[in-house]
Amino acid sequence: MSKIVKTFKEVFKLCGLKNGMTISFHHHMRNGDYVLNNVISQLDECGFRDIKIAPSAVFPIHEPLIEYIKKGVVTSIDTNYMSGSVAEFISLGEMEQPVKFRSHGGRPKAMEDGEIKVDVAFVAAPSSDKMGNINGVLGSSACGSLGYAFSDVEHAKSVVAVTDYLVDYPNPYISIDETKVDYVVPVSKIGDSAKIVSGTTKITRDPVGLTIAKNAASVIEKSGLLKNGFSFQTGAGGASLAAAYYLKKVMLEKNIQGSFGMGGITKYFVDFLNEGFFKTLMDVQCFDLDAVKSIKENPNHIEISASLYANPNSKSCVVDNLDIVILGATEIDTNFNVNVHTDSNGMIIGGSGGHSDTAAGSKLCIIVTPLIRARLPIIVDKVTTISTPGNTIDVLVTERGIAVNPNRKELKNKLIDEGLKVLDIQEMQNIAQKITGKPKRARLSHKIVGEVIYRDGNIIDTIKAVNKR
Amino acid sequence: MSKIVKTFKEVFKLCGLKNGMTISFHHHMRNGDYVLNNVISQLDECGFRDIKIAPSAVFPIHEPLIEYIKKGVVTSIDTNYMSGSVAEFISLGEMEQPVKFRSHGGRPKAMEDGEIKVDVAFVAAPSSDKMGNINGVLGSSACGSLGYAFSDVEHAKSVVAVTDYLVDYPNPYISIDETKVDYVVPVSKIGDSAKIVSGTTKITRDPVGLTIAKNAASVIEKSGLLKNGFSFQTGAGGASLAAAYYLKKVMLEKNIQGSFGMGGITKYFVDFLNEGFFKTLMDVQCFDLDAVKSIKENPNHIEISASLYANPNSKSCVVDNLDIVILGATEIDTNFNVNVHTDSNGMIIGGSGGHSDTAAGSKLCIIVTPLIRARLPIIVDKVTTISTPGNTIDVLVTERGIAVNPNRKELKNKLIDEGLKVLDIQEMQNIAQKITGKPKRARLSHKIVGEVIYRDGNIIDTIKAVNKR
Repeated sequence: MSKIVKTFKEVFKLCGLKNGMTISFHHHMRNGDYVLNNVISQLDECGFRDIKIAPSAVFPIHEPLIEYIKKGVVTSIDTNYMSGSVAEFISLGEMEQPVKFRSHGGRPKAMEDGEIKVDVAFVAAPSSDKMGNINGVLGSSACGSLGYAFSDVEHAKSVVAVTDYLVDYPNPYISIDETKVDYVVPVSKIGDSAKIVSGTTKITRDPVGLTIAKNAASVIEKSGLLKNGFSFQTGAGGASLAAAYYLKKVMLEKNIQGSFGMGGITKYFVDFLNEGFFKTLMDVQCFDLDAVKSIKENPNHIEISASLYANPNSKSCVVDNLDIVILGATEIDTNFNVNVHTDSNGMIIGGSGGHSDTAAGSKLCIIVTPLIRARLPIIVDKVTTISTPGNTIDVLVTERGIAVNPNRKELKNKLIDEGLKVLDIQEMQNIAQKITGKPKRARLSHKIVGEVIYRDGNIIDTIKAVNKR
Repeated sequence: MSKIVKTFKEVFKLCGLKNGMTISFHHHMRNGDYVLNNVISQLDECGFRDIKIAPSAVFPIHEPLIEYIKKGVVTSIDTNYMSGSVAEFISLGEMEQPVKFRSHGGRPKAMEDGEIKVDVAFVAAPSSDKMGNINGVLGSSACGSLGYAFSDVEHAKSVVAVTDYLVDYPNPYISIDETKVDYVVPVSKIGDSAKIVSGTTKITRDPVGLTIAKNAASVIEKSGLLKNGFSFQTGAGGASLAAAYYLKKVMLEKNIQGSFGMGGITKYFVDFLNEGFFKTLMDVQCFDLDAVKSIKENPNHIEISASLYANPNSKSCVVDNLDIVILGATEIDTNFNVNVHTDSNGMIIGGSGGHSDTAAGSKLCIIVTPLIRARLPIIVDKVTTISTPGNTIDVLVTERGIAVNPNRKELKNKLIDEGLKVLDIQEMQNIAQKITGKPKRARLSHKIVGEVIYRDGNIIDTIKAVNKR
């Protein structure tokens, strides 16, 4: 009794993989992931063409994809996030099929609804036994939570665990169990876990960032939501983490203990848990190795699936009970619509991830951003790409003040009463534009290179190709 | 945001429950379960009739069912095990519809295949938060593993968590998560966890039992399977536990560490784990409060679903990798078919549970039984009820010797070479019959009161009504 298959070639055959089929990946190895590149290069060697891929995210390390797209090995991408040269390549209009961009909660929904039909799911498994009992906490490539992979193994016709750490049966920690796994392929390395830490995961030292963070913490403090049992999510950006730092000070002063922290989890959240500021962490993805260690050792640091995190199809999900989330933006418009897919030039630099999910679910969604970035104003008349609809955003916090969504009048009055500097979003736009001038809207091509699919499954925007220079 | 519903009446309405529908229960509270009786009595009060129930087991505490069957509230039962007065009532032919008896692995398969279509699953939840994140390890009714409930929540149209311990959101331990749960009904008590311990869970002191146990341990020792990494399951009966005790001595002598122990878990298995005799416990059900404590505290004491335990529909399950299992029998026939559903009078006193699943999956399935019980010989020409087909049984161990299934010639020769007292099963039958005389086969009525559905979904036997006296 063993599901071990020695080579990818063999496993492709066993899974009945054919041209035109869809394969999926999860992104917990982040910019250290070797599995996607490995599988695609083997597919190419075997002569496969017209493969559709559904990775939960694409990182700079996946640059080799470009060649495989050019060769026709890969013809379609369905993902929640994309950065690095593949994103640039897509932005330049080099791929025929537009990329489908979903949210972390929308992806499992799409699998349940059959909008994404996965033929073979490849699971990067930091440890597995011979039968495919898998976890993310053992082995030299430990990445912690495997939250995004749960929907893949639930819905894919075939599931292949790819592992560099084969343990005796049964695996002593089981995140995904053998009832869902068809084959186990041992490889020398599934990735470089040091590169799980990607992007900023340190508190900013930039004075503008610190001012924004203080303002955000004040909004939370004065919102009326900061009380025992409140819940909180923040991204791993420098200003967001700084806001968490200031929030902690307020919690200490006021002797407040939160219920749960959520999101991509960093050392800062692990400290929150260990120091008793929150009772539990709900972890769909670890953002650093402190989080990986904690999720293994601390039973109150809970691995959650993408469905439990944010799937709007489910009977409920945790974002429905999220009080406060701090999120970033590349642009926000005067209707509070937020762009996290493209920069102001229209170049793809990210994606929703859990942005629109947490904005929709939370009681208080705060966007933190400087008024001006790279000499461009962040508040615009109309965002280049709508990632998150403005009606789900409550407050914009910048270094120059706070703007409250007009649909949150009560909150606005409360913050004004509490003495916070609340401006209209147009006023804030004017302040910035006095410095930068009115920016020209990027002139994009007519070619659609991406579709932004909201968590409910509807397309809420398209991304156009940028013009080559 | 809350799923709390105050009364069953309300929840029946919210679930759209109608006459003729199917509701399910799990049996981790065992003979201390209050939930089934509570729900059925409320159904009666609301005037429901023709309700089909699918409890994973029925215990003596469920005696009130009899009245509800008579009244037409309950018209059909689909279960894996039945003991006590309901079993007697069924045996007497008092219910119109035959009871469908399945195995622990066959039940989740039947739900996947749509043979059991559950409209509403009621989950006895020792702890739940307001959104239905559930575990079995907190609260005064903690029962440990919730393994049998997993398939119910996966497949039921509506899921109702019934709890007597509502915790702050989010529940710090999550076995079944809110994505699957529709409503949470708080009650004063879901059961009496002291009565989880039902049946014999102490090592026998009976000399016959001890001899059988020693013989069973010798079979294991000499089988060639007792080596590092071997896996083991045994029931909670006195002789089985005694066999485990002798096995432990052999393991100590030979310095052997097993991989996993499985099954309904008792203190004996917890000690096995804590003392390092096994690396992990795979626990689908706790049989005592030591097990409940251990599954909460020891990460290597793993809660497994019925599917992971034994579902033949799954891509694999743990019984496929089980080396050795010790099981009981009320009768075994000369073709090694085993009866655990009825006694020799044809009265229903149990059911497959995991009997046929583990027999089919294991490399070595040992039946332990005295030659004679209550003045009746246990080896018969033809079992009253086939629970587990003889081709999956390897060895019969009694106090007078060992019989090996003729289809295991190699094993038979090995045990003979090792000096064990191996007899033909007919010889053993003769030994017993010299004492007891040839028993008369129970004269049963023609009325079918039960169907024994094997784990593959096929009916392998029927149970006839016993004649009233």
